[in-house]
Amino acid sequence: MYLGKVLGNIVCSHKDAQMQGMKLLIVTAIDGTGKPKGKPFVACDSIGAGAGETVFLCGGGEAALPFIKQRPPSDASILGIIDSIED
Amino acid sequence: MYLGKVLGNIVCSHKDAQMQGMKLLIVTAIDGTGKPKGKPFVACDSIGAGAGETVFLCGGGEAALPFIKQRPPSDASILGIIDSIED
Amino acid sequence: MYLGKVLGNIVCSHKDAQMQGMKLLIVTAIDGTGKPKGKPFVACDSIGAGAGETVFLCGGGEAALPFIKQRPPSDASILGIIDSIED
Amino acid sequence: MYLGKVLGNIVCSHKDAQMQGMKLLIVTAIDGTGKPKGKPFVACDSIGAGAGETVFLCGGGEAALPFIKQRPPSDASILGIIDSIED
Amino acid sequence: MYLGKVLGNIVCSHKDAQMQGMKLLIVTAIDGTGKPKGKPFVACDSIGAGAGETVFLCGGGEAALPFIKQRPPSDASILGIIDSIED
Repeated sequence: MYLGKVLGNIVCSHKDAQMQGMKLLIVTAIDGTGKPKGKPFVACDSIGAGAGETVFLCGGGEAALPFIKQRPPSDASILGIIDSIED
Repeated sequence: MYLGKVLGNIVCSHKDAQMQGMKLLIVTAIDGTGKPKGKPFVACDSIGAGAGETVFLCGGGEAALPFIKQRPPSDASILGIIDSIED
Repeated sequence: MYLGKVLGNIVCSHKDAQMQGMKLLIVTAIDGTGKPKGKPFVACDSIGAGAGETVFLCGGGEAALPFIKQRPPSDASILGIIDSIED
Repeated sequence: MYLGKVLGNIVCSHKDAQMQGMKLLIVTAIDGTGKPKGKPFVACDSIGAGAGETVFLCGGGEAALPFIKQRPPSDASILGIIDSIED
Repeated sequence: MYLGKVLGNIVCSHKDAQMQGMKLLIVTAIDGTGKPKGKPFVACDSIGAGAGETVFLCGGGEAALPFIKQRPPSDASILGIIDSIED
């Protein structure tokens, strides 16, 4: 799972039926020092993350698991909000 | 899910049987400022996206989910047309 | 799905049992102008593509779908030969 | 499967229900000489790896297999602690 | 499927139960001229490949298919030893 920071929401009136009702956030991956790295992307959120928070996400087929009933075609989902990292 | 911009259509008379009838678009990934990044690629579309529009797409095994009956061997599908991004 | 150009065949006398009888081609990914990009790789082909042709391929778990009975452990399969791209 | 070095633990009070009780470590990928490469990421651990150890991990859908009952939405799991590499 | 060259074996006394008995090799990806490219990684082998040989491998979920009974959490498996490449 990779680390990211939430940037904001997307507004998207026209979308796939299986994406209806999903909360979609714009997220950027971050490196070990918290600096953004790479292109921002869209992730599904079920745990209430918001702009500015550091989160970890899973990609690939596993990204649909947190939404087991709806099974959205998601390939990036927020799994947790990180409080701190310990050596 | 990643952000992209639709470039156009592909014409492809000879293709896999499970791809018959699928609308195929040429798309380029974009960065946070909307600038194209990386190689253009082919994506399936079921929501009516067209050239010039900003969309978000899913990759991997999830890309077949929007086409559940046909189950095309797709690894990139357009999920939504983005109206705006909010901080 | 990504764009590629077929380079040739591989000869491989010793291979996994589930790969027996599969036509294996060497392919290189290409950028928007048709220029090769990245390392050449091996792809399964079921549609009769040959050296010099521009094709599109799928990767990941979807690459086994065009060969549903044999279910080879393929992660790259040629899906179509591209005639032209339209804006 | 790729090589990595364990950096430490993450503390994460707010996470997805299917991640409850999973041991989560911060890991960095390493190159052939053991030098860190790329962004640190989060991996599930079931074999008792700890900070400073060299491990190998699997990614993608396979990363849920070591935790077959809980089936966490993991895309990176530690599979083994490496003692040595032989030519 | 990508091209690689086998570098050697790994010794790993402590590993996931589903990896027990699997032959694990250290492999490096190669480019079109046979030059190593990228970080070495760990792959499962069922066809008897050895150090110095040029092989092709599959990644992702397909990498478990050659080991269908054991279903190891593998994301890289050797599928064939390459004798030659023909234009």
